[in-house]
Amino acid sequence: MTDTCPVAFFLSDSTGITAETLGNTLITQFPQQRFERHTVPFINTAERARQVTARIDAVAATGRMPVVFSTVVDPDIRGLLAGSQGFFVDLFGTHLPQLETALHATANLQPGRAHGLGDAIRYQTRMAAVEYAMEHDDGQSIRALETADLILIAPSRCGKTPTSMYLALQHGVRVANFPLVDEDFERRALPAPVSPHRRKCFGLTSQPLRLSQIRQERRPSTVYSSLPQCSWELRNAEEMYALNSIPHVNSASMSVEEISATILDRMELAEVDHEQTGHLR
Amino acid sequence: MTDTCPVAFFLSDSTGITAETLGNTLITQFPQQRFERHTVPFINTAERARQVTARIDAVAATGRMPVVFSTVVDPDIRGLLAGSQGFFVDLFGTHLPQLETALHATANLQPGRAHGLGDAIRYQTRMAAVEYAMEHDDGQSIRALETADLILIAPSRCGKTPTSMYLALQHGVRVANFPLVDEDFERRALPAPVSPHRRKCFGLTSQPLRLSQIRQERRPSTVYSSLPQCSWELRNAEEMYALNSIPHVNSASMSVEEISATILDRMELAEVDHEQTGHLR
Repeated sequence: MTDTCPVAFFLSDSTGITAETLGNTLITQFPQQRFERHTVPFINTAERARQVTARIDAVAATGRMPVVFSTVVDPDIRGLLAGSQGFFVDLFGTHLPQLETALHATANLQPGRAHGLGDAIRYQTRMAAVEYAMEHDDGQSIRALETADLILIAPSRCGKTPTSMYLALQHGVRVANFPLVDEDFERRALPAPVSPHRRKCFGLTSQPLRLSQIRQERRPSTVYSSLPQCSWELRNAEEMYALNSIPHVNSASMSVEEISATILDRMELAEVDHEQTGHLR
Repeated sequence: MTDTCPVAFFLSDSTGITAETLGNTLITQFPQQRFERHTVPFINTAERARQVTARIDAVAATGRMPVVFSTVVDPDIRGLLAGSQGFFVDLFGTHLPQLETALHATANLQPGRAHGLGDAIRYQTRMAAVEYAMEHDDGQSIRALETADLILIAPSRCGKTPTSMYLALQHGVRVANFPLVDEDFERRALPAPVSPHRRKCFGLTSQPLRLSQIRQERRPSTVYSSLPQCSWELRNAEEMYALNSIPHVNSASMSVEEISATILDRMELAEVDHEQTGHLR
């Protein structure tokens, strides 16, 4: 980060999630630039808008370029923010008029609607899914496995837990996850509790060197974290997936979002009206 | 959902997260309309683009309005998708040329950059934060509390666990959470393990009726789920927050994203260059 790099501001009248998503997606198309980044959520008053505008102008006064990504809905507050010295990317200002024309409808200009204020059913579904995922993390419980939407299987430290939590929190998917261990590989069979549900199973693999590095952090200089052991487990896991026709993905160079989207796509859990059902079915 | 409602398509060459976030933010400004929604990720080939275009045209042929939100980067694939009968909202096509002008730079048009392909440090930070949050869920462990970024406290079922998981997964925040129970209220003091860390504490409250409903689902017809007990716990929790100057929020009508954004903002954990540090500091 240099003192001359551009400064991205993500401005919102709500959580800032959409502004960050929009802005980050766009600026990562300029990988040769480093950006300093600031998120300013809950800009709901003219006073707060003026404070933010002053901050943006202070950046511009130092000769650095402020790039502003706004998902503020209120036209008056939007107007104040647009008056700053920053380069202004305005999600609603740009796209809402087009959509109004296309839909023959008028936007209601209510802030913070995107993240389900009052969408209690969806919230409860996701809360229940998170609880289910925690209860069924790492093979801890085999209770109610028949109500799982998905069972993730993999050797230790391939990313089962974060992927399960992401799918539960973001998509309300009821995910159980099970470790594959030496005795499974020696028996050349899926863990007994999982076996009847193999059509719900999805496998994760990794790269031996990467897996070994991750395991070293937890238990250095052990058989568990040794490269030969990691190679052996991954090779056996891949054979087991092939033998049981279980779809799988190599998590080594993917983000948790990418792993999750791949699973939803491959398991055909992706295409659902979340708002409607609150659930992936 | 009627047979005549418009159909939103979220199209992406990567996970689809940005297209969904952008599109949902825009269409929820038209609450009088119901939308059927379809996410199609990983559109990386002309063949897949043609299949999607055919699906969109099939919707249009039934007289329903397809509204297409695209975050596809590749200009050729974008061109194929733009040729459908749907109304086309094109994130990159609309905003990248403006940004290129503002930044005096050329976008590199690489798909899937937004979600941190290869950003291994950030991924590991988040993985470690999820593990930390799971180990420190519901007061299960007081090990390494001094390394927590945040300690969430609240009576049972006010939303501690999903909020902790969200902050860990999305922001790499190390969150511990602790239940407030009858004996804490009777002693009129924070739980002993938390007390030395009160400046890291954030409290959740709820509405008595809503809390009672949620508890009824878990343990119907018990003192635990009764309205008087819920009222008593919430009143005592609020007093405890006030007594110890602990910031807090009522989670009853908020989504997990809103609760999390509020906490980040109030605890001044919000404004960080995530890409740079992989951590909220």
